[in-house]
Amino acid sequence: MAETFVSRRNLDFVLNEVLNVESLNQYGYFEDHSSDTFKMVLDTAMKISTDLMYPYLKEMDEQYPRWEDGQVYVHHAVKDFLKEIGQGGWIQADKPYEYEGQQLPMTVRQAANILFSSANYSMHVYPLLTAGAANLIYSFGTDEMKEKYLPKMYGGEWQGTMALTEPDVGSSLGDLTTSAEPTDKGYYLISGKKIFISAASSDVVDNVINLMLARIKGAPAGVPGISLFIVPQKRFTESGDFEYNDIYCGGIEHKLGYRGSPICQLIMGEGKDCHGYLVGEPGKGLAQMFMMMNEERIGVGVGAIGKISAAYYASLEYAQQRRQGRHLDDKDPTQPMVPLIEHADIKRMLLFQKAVTEGSLSLALLVSLYQDLELVADDKEKYSLLIDFLIPILKTYPSEMGILSASAAIQILGGYGYCGDFPVEQYYRDIRIDAIHEGTTCMHGQDLLGRKISMKNGKAYELFQAEVADTINEAAKKPELAKYADALNKAIALMKDLTEALSQKKNTISREAFLADSVLYLEFMSIITIAWQWLKQMAVAADALKGSSLEHDKRFYQGKIYTGQYFFDYELVKIYSLDQRLRSDDKVTVEITKEFFED
Amino acid sequence: MAETFVSRRNLDFVLNEVLNVESLNQYGYFEDHSSDTFKMVLDTAMKISTDLMYPYLKEMDEQYPRWEDGQVYVHHAVKDFLKEIGQGGWIQADKPYEYEGQQLPMTVRQAANILFSSANYSMHVYPLLTAGAANLIYSFGTDEMKEKYLPKMYGGEWQGTMALTEPDVGSSLGDLTTSAEPTDKGYYLISGKKIFISAASSDVVDNVINLMLARIKGAPAGVPGISLFIVPQKRFTESGDFEYNDIYCGGIEHKLGYRGSPICQLIMGEGKDCHGYLVGEPGKGLAQMFMMMNEERIGVGVGAIGKISAAYYASLEYAQQRRQGRHLDDKDPTQPMVPLIEHADIKRMLLFQKAVTEGSLSLALLVSLYQDLELVADDKEKYSLLIDFLIPILKTYPSEMGILSASAAIQILGGYGYCGDFPVEQYYRDIRIDAIHEGTTCMHGQDLLGRKISMKNGKAYELFQAEVADTINEAAKKPELAKYADALNKAIALMKDLTEALSQKKNTISREAFLADSVLYLEFMSIITIAWQWLKQMAVAADALKGSSLEHDKRFYQGKIYTGQYFFDYELVKIYSLDQRLRSDDKVTVEITKEFFED
Repeated sequence: MAETFVSRRNLDFVLNEVLNVESLNQYGYFEDHSSDTFKMVLDTAMKISTDLMYPYLKEMDEQYPRWEDGQVYVHHAVKDFLKEIGQGGWIQADKPYEYEGQQLPMTVRQAANILFSSANYSMHVYPLLTAGAANLIYSFGTDEMKEKYLPKMYGGEWQGTMALTEPDVGSSLGDLTTSAEPTDKGYYLISGKKIFISAASSDVVDNVINLMLARIKGAPAGVPGISLFIVPQKRFTESGDFEYNDIYCGGIEHKLGYRGSPICQLIMGEGKDCHGYLVGEPGKGLAQMFMMMNEERIGVGVGAIGKISAAYYASLEYAQQRRQGRHLDDKDPTQPMVPLIEHADIKRMLLFQKAVTEGSLSLALLVSLYQDLELVADDKEKYSLLIDFLIPILKTYPSEMGILSASAAIQILGGYGYCGDFPVEQYYRDIRIDAIHEGTTCMHGQDLLGRKISMKNGKAYELFQAEVADTINEAAKKPELAKYADALNKAIALMKDLTEALSQKKNTISREAFLADSVLYLEFMSIITIAWQWLKQMAVAADALKGSSLEHDKRFYQGKIYTGQYFFDYELVKIYSLDQRLRSDDKVTVEITKEFFED
Repeated sequence: MAETFVSRRNLDFVLNEVLNVESLNQYGYFEDHSSDTFKMVLDTAMKISTDLMYPYLKEMDEQYPRWEDGQVYVHHAVKDFLKEIGQGGWIQADKPYEYEGQQLPMTVRQAANILFSSANYSMHVYPLLTAGAANLIYSFGTDEMKEKYLPKMYGGEWQGTMALTEPDVGSSLGDLTTSAEPTDKGYYLISGKKIFISAASSDVVDNVINLMLARIKGAPAGVPGISLFIVPQKRFTESGDFEYNDIYCGGIEHKLGYRGSPICQLIMGEGKDCHGYLVGEPGKGLAQMFMMMNEERIGVGVGAIGKISAAYYASLEYAQQRRQGRHLDDKDPTQPMVPLIEHADIKRMLLFQKAVTEGSLSLALLVSLYQDLELVADDKEKYSLLIDFLIPILKTYPSEMGILSASAAIQILGGYGYCGDFPVEQYYRDIRIDAIHEGTTCMHGQDLLGRKISMKNGKAYELFQAEVADTINEAAKKPELAKYADALNKAIALMKDLTEALSQKKNTISREAFLADSVLYLEFMSIITIAWQWLKQMAVAADALKGSSLEHDKRFYQGKIYTGQYFFDYELVKIYSLDQRLRSDDKVTVEITKEFFED
């Protein structure tokens, strides 16, 4: 195992120096907090990560969950972890005091989540899923539901899930068929099958509370017919005991990675006695689920960031320690070999990982800060729009580039990277899920180009530009960064021109042709967004470098500037080829039809 | 399991219609062959692939080799396969009649290897490694060695290996330390440890013949001190029996993929009685090994092509059968869902895989044809230089792009792609080794930019340009392809200009700075090379399309043209961003030093 999986120094830099998270304390909701409480939260998260999570990373991959007669058995370490998380109040930490929360800013909470997911993503998802399910009850449930379910879920004693996917329904959720038959007893009879439900059965909790989408009998086709239900594994009897709710786990998937967390099939209502409790209004299920979806999508981005952080540090440690070859300008075979990190191509692969990881991390915490400001600041719409605009990027960029980033980690280790003695091959497997779950990359590309750009008459897109412009103006004042400010300025001009060109075509070509390359558009926009994050960080680092006297600090800030340079030199330039492709009217992917793939 | 793993139709197209492999029969060496014998060879290879290899793909991944007390136990199916391969004369098929060969063109042999590796790469490597080891004996061994070892190796009864890597020596082979102490009995005493040696122990063969690099005691440091030895697992006694040769397998690696073939540690000379037999002259070991290395590197490229071919067909089959969502222009939820293959983004990912696979395949068979011509044609140097020039590209492009190609296969299957019920996750794991073994991508980038471009005063590079120009001129005559001929022409002009610009810097900057981005240069050159292969195929397909009356043929040729269009529209454009990066004088990857990575 590598010694390091995340940089606490970098987290502190982004939170305190780039985002000045402490300034949130000026708002009443956060006034009890201070940089001290934030530090304490992160210290505790770091301790949990180091003591209870990271040591089980490999074991949970190898001794993955076992299914037996409708019950799933998971690694025992999950129990200790959930207990600690429950007792520490982590699941509801951002909730108001009246719900036993701590009114912790999301920015700090997500920083802790980055620690958790870099230590052991499979373990981290158990409470993450519970938080997502609890949020649905918190937002749309009745007071009775809140009383019944939330304390146990917050305490880590009950697991929560979000049950959407069905055997024939993945991305196309409007087509789901799980049915809910009304009764006159206040509950619905649920019947159907769900698949790919994370943590929907485990022996380390007393109950599982599934937040499930289903179609009330007779409801219209498509999205308007979908409603949200609580479908617990065990339900309360009238006497307050528990009884079996005619729902069981029919099996778990054997997966490429992310193996410490079981992905379950759920079978409901075989005995026609599976009770479901309607949450909110009928027909609003998908809308309610999607109001929570931002949180889940940020969670995927943050999870990806955690994994590539850990892969980066594992490969960095190896590159520092392993000697191989000599400098290209000095190949005397009688001299000792040099550490890998002295080779330019190894440094290129390290800088790539560092740039992707820390650029995405900076974006993740910025979006979290927007969430905090959405809650407390005057201009709520502004922050809400910025969040909506940035979500597809935050969800997708670390997930897609993370595949390459973890692959670079393997490449640095060479043959050893391909073997199980080092953790990088696991990160490579673990991260591959992120471009799929909570909406595939294709869905997010269509979301950005098809909706977010034009949403509210383009207001979100304009707000995004204004934020980037602030950063460019700030950086342009610093001579050493003028070149990068200029490069980003040019990129933004290209983006405006391209987006305008595409928008003009929107009404003259089919929607299919308009959206055919939206994945590439998402990539284009993501690169620009991450370049913005790097310019932001470089501007802070440039000032701090001047003010630092400690060698260690100077190296940190200079390292930031080098990494930003890497991003501009090697990554930002990719937009020019993407632009060329995106402007083309040749639409072979639309034109070709299935019979031409036959041979 | 998917039904299809490779397209025989496509192989025939490249062999017969693009390369006109039958024309080799005009040369005496190949005169006994005809299109009929080629067809027979491929029919047999297809049958072996279908009956003896593909059915065990998943089983060999799951029931991977087991090590016990110095012995490795592999899947029983390997034994039947080796028997068939041995009896069929596959290992020496390209060798002259006097060595029991069939004087089969390499072009046809590699086509068969593509079939084998698409069916089951882990199984295919057993005889592939034997062929590599046997080639060394065939080329550099004494007649006595040939008599002693080759018949059993060709017969598939003895396994061959190539034993280079050591615990501290991977890419930097000049530093290896395995020692060979001369005796007065005609053998050397070998002592040391090798790692990552594929198939160096297995219970399905009677003996293993390791072709091993070692340093004769007192030899100079570095490459000039390295010699080549035969180090058999069991050696002959004077009476003709076998005895243990003091070499054993100390363990096998648990790997990300490519699991059906064991990767062994070898421990030699613990009892000071491991005999090694010098092959060729002392000090020539690495040179001899590298003369065979072209074959091994083509083998890696071909292996990668096989895996992504199989991944492509698995995802194609899924996209044809699985229904999900509706057309973007027609989202009526009361209508049935459409097959995935009707969505543009799915077609984009299919075209990407098809373009990478078939473009690389076309290059692989072209290089093989050059190998045949090198053997028989007048202008041997021309073909030899073209082969040397193209090897880094053929080895690397399918290996690196194959990672993305197999990843696209997973993405098409969504959550199912991440699960073990479908084979794509295995291909994704299996292919990750190819950018590492037989020289990492970094080594090949340095080879191309640092040596191959300037080799023989740039003659190889010029020959490459002449070959591409022929294709461009041919395609430019066809109005429907003029646009693509023009695009490739522009790309070649850019390549010349960029290469010239880089060459001019060569003597004014350090070698480290000159080669710092050679991996990106390799990518740039590879994209152009594959575009050339696509233009070649499009030109043939365009003519054939006009001459076809069968609907099935028309669809095939039109599919080729669409795929070529995809390559030009989506892949070739990537060179413009790479060019921008490669021309830059900002060398952050050289400038940054290890202390800036500390935090």
